[in-house]
Amino acid sequence: MQPLAHARAHRARFLEELKRFVRFPSVSAQTKHAGDVKACAEWLAGHLKAIGMAGARIVPTPRHPIVYAEWTGAPGRPTVLIYGHYDVQPPDPLNEWTSPPFEPTVRGRHLYGRGACDDKGQLFAHVKALESCLKTSGQLPVNVKCLFEGEEEIGSPNLKTFLMKNAEKLAADAAVMSDTRMLGPDQPALTYSLRGGLSLELEIAGPRQDLHSGTFGGAVHNPLQALCEIVARLHDKDGRIAIPGFYDRVRPLDPRERSYMATVGPADARILADAGAERRWGEKGFSLYERTTVRPSLSVCGLTGGYQGEGSKAVIPARASAKLNFRLVPDQNPREIEELVRHHLARITPSTVRSRITTQVGARPAVLDRGQPVMRAAAHAYRRGFGAAPVFLRSGGSIPVVNLFQERLGIPTALMGFALPDDRIHAPNERFFLPNFERGIATCLAFLEEMAAVRSERTEGKAA
Amino acid sequence: MQPLAHARAHRARFLEELKRFVRFPSVSAQTKHAGDVKACAEWLAGHLKAIGMAGARIVPTPRHPIVYAEWTGAPGRPTVLIYGHYDVQPPDPLNEWTSPPFEPTVRGRHLYGRGACDDKGQLFAHVKALESCLKTSGQLPVNVKCLFEGEEEIGSPNLKTFLMKNAEKLAADAAVMSDTRMLGPDQPALTYSLRGGLSLELEIAGPRQDLHSGTFGGAVHNPLQALCEIVARLHDKDGRIAIPGFYDRVRPLDPRERSYMATVGPADARILADAGAERRWGEKGFSLYERTTVRPSLSVCGLTGGYQGEGSKAVIPARASAKLNFRLVPDQNPREIEELVRHHLARITPSTVRSRITTQVGARPAVLDRGQPVMRAAAHAYRRGFGAAPVFLRSGGSIPVVNLFQERLGIPTALMGFALPDDRIHAPNERFFLPNFERGIATCLAFLEEMAAVRSERTEGKAA
Repeated sequence: MQPLAHARAHRARFLEELKRFVRFPSVSAQTKHAGDVKACAEWLAGHLKAIGMAGARIVPTPRHPIVYAEWTGAPGRPTVLIYGHYDVQPPDPLNEWTSPPFEPTVRGRHLYGRGACDDKGQLFAHVKALESCLKTSGQLPVNVKCLFEGEEEIGSPNLKTFLMKNAEKLAADAAVMSDTRMLGPDQPALTYSLRGGLSLELEIAGPRQDLHSGTFGGAVHNPLQALCEIVARLHDKDGRIAIPGFYDRVRPLDPRERSYMATVGPADARILADAGAERRWGEKGFSLYERTTVRPSLSVCGLTGGYQGEGSKAVIPARASAKLNFRLVPDQNPREIEELVRHHLARITPSTVRSRITTQVGARPAVLDRGQPVMRAAAHAYRRGFGAAPVFLRSGGSIPVVNLFQERLGIPTALMGFALPDDRIHAPNERFFLPNFERGIATCLAFLEEMAAVRSERTEGKAA
Repeated sequence: MQPLAHARAHRARFLEELKRFVRFPSVSAQTKHAGDVKACAEWLAGHLKAIGMAGARIVPTPRHPIVYAEWTGAPGRPTVLIYGHYDVQPPDPLNEWTSPPFEPTVRGRHLYGRGACDDKGQLFAHVKALESCLKTSGQLPVNVKCLFEGEEEIGSPNLKTFLMKNAEKLAADAAVMSDTRMLGPDQPALTYSLRGGLSLELEIAGPRQDLHSGTFGGAVHNPLQALCEIVARLHDKDGRIAIPGFYDRVRPLDPRERSYMATVGPADARILADAGAERRWGEKGFSLYERTTVRPSLSVCGLTGGYQGEGSKAVIPARASAKLNFRLVPDQNPREIEELVRHHLARITPSTVRSRITTQVGARPAVLDRGQPVMRAAAHAYRRGFGAAPVFLRSGGSIPVVNLFQERLGIPTALMGFALPDDRIHAPNERFFLPNFERGIATCLAFLEEMAAVRSERTEGKAA
């Protein structure tokens, strides 16, 4: 039996296994789920063993484990590093889910559940492609190393150390990962740039304790109000980020690339429809596609303070806080930006309150060379899996590992994603389009075969 | 035995009973506590019966019951209506309490617990004064009607209907309530004005669902950011409320009263110390005491939206909301102000998001005549209970019933409070200064005796 035939024959089981995978509430951001993250890693390592990746194991880190597996039975052939992440975003707000986030449910042609798309479903397409080869021919077209992370959604804090320590072991001719979007169900896309990220928490402290808003209203600066005043000053009226120096290192957009982006990229109307938003917003002079990819952004991802329950409570809270998420573009550096932000916030915090900033996540932006062999292999694989040549897209998201692979390990990477724009990743009712799971497996299979034809600069495995 | 001797002899039991009273989580704002509110009302009615108020009963309302009791055994004597409320504010934030809010705990000379001061402790001083008379002489110096409400902290939504339906039954020569602050432990104070209140919830809606802040950051107006921008525009840079027409009906302060207020009222430093705040804030040209009593205010009492858990979540939330609490002064009218606010918010809401306003609570401001007999009786009572003549204070708080008594039932009212400025009402670690519980009982006893000397305009009870 051919690998592809195996994949088709076992479609129903593959879906059940993916549901099992999604059922783990592997929320990396929340300490209470640390046990679930670990259980998910153990299940994944066990599953890799079961499909024939004999040495699969979990590698502890200071926080959540890495799942690692390798198959090096193709001496002289290239080595492919497959990256994915099995951790997921918090499922909040819970009451907006139609079916519970960790009870994966098929409705229509979608599988609903937190992580169904980002990234368990996409990661699992690679796993099932590996199974389909190993269970039919007993081997893979190339040497394969699997690196499945449990900390992507919290900014991969321990990945760099792991990569640097194991640079030798992880050496590969190319890396591939599926954690990005296609343009539509029949239009695959290779992502060639990612924004960097910087997540900060801003806390405003005022009076020593919560105060009665009748007794003290009008006499002290309310931390919630001060927080609003500060946050309101982070953008100017033209939608630009109003932090001095913030745009200094933003690389101007090449006119030819701009023209390519305008041709293949999503139109404003498409992006608004995907967002479920009625009106455009943001930096003047740029399309929405440009605003979300080649221009940096600042989102307030959470605000909290005071009374949030039912009805009213007459209180001036002692503290308030905001979660801020910057997306950065070449050549912005998260550390430099953090310094600019800290400096600016110190300057605009009124003397009536105190502000404190905690850094949570930083990641550098990445731009990949569209001409490298791994990109061509991925493009051919897409053509075989989806029947269409991919377009090249920029993404607004951040995948810290891409920059690490590129700058630290020197491994060229293909971002060969299977997500769709309306898969609601990070939001309630996240889902994965099941035809993309099947075509994704076919594409991953084709990618391994395409990579076999690439001339390796390395030697691996038994022959070494 | 004299009533005062009874009160002293049973001091320890009184404290245990107050603790029992505080133990009920009678949080009127939260539906989940409806049963607790009712249980608290039943306990209070039972307790009133036990001390000799034979007909004590609970009266259902559409939400939380009223506890009513009367003793009309003093024909020809005046009738006093004692008001208090047995409901409490939500205890949030829970993690800031040293001892749990509903496990009343004595530390030093204070009883800690939600409602210990506001208003269970103060209400209970009246109850124990009634007991001290009834258990010693078998009677009271005047006719007494007790009206103990379970909805004060949510703006007394059902009280007006009850008062209007039972106007005849509730008729009294004077009303007294203890739900206000003294200036310090040895300086009692009669409150002669209260601010009105208006609580609104402002919700900002943006995209149809939560969005990934990487994918969409920079292209849609973030509801959290829009909320901050709107809230930031509700005050001008001089600390004034920036809603057109808002100050139109604010009564100018009489220069003589201003001078009296400056003499007896708390200094800025005192108010800052009570607040645990380092710096003054607010409307230029007014002292902090003036800003919190004769000038209106707007407090943001709660903000919510997006991710509030541990760590970061890269999300643009679909919605965000703020709880706004206005405090109003004569001659501002909550309904008129609400219209101004709605109009202004509609005007400043950008076209990129939608805003919705829900009204939660409205109460009119009240100013009481300092020369009326009930004020004199209360002043004498304070002198006997605390050994000092009271000053006359304005309060920044709101007690909806005061305006209703005054304008709807025509009953003159004394606000004879026993709270201290640092009792942390509405905040974590609320407490009641126990010497004020004892002196409060003595003052309530003295008040009933002083009222016996006031000429009644009514006939009550058996002789009627």
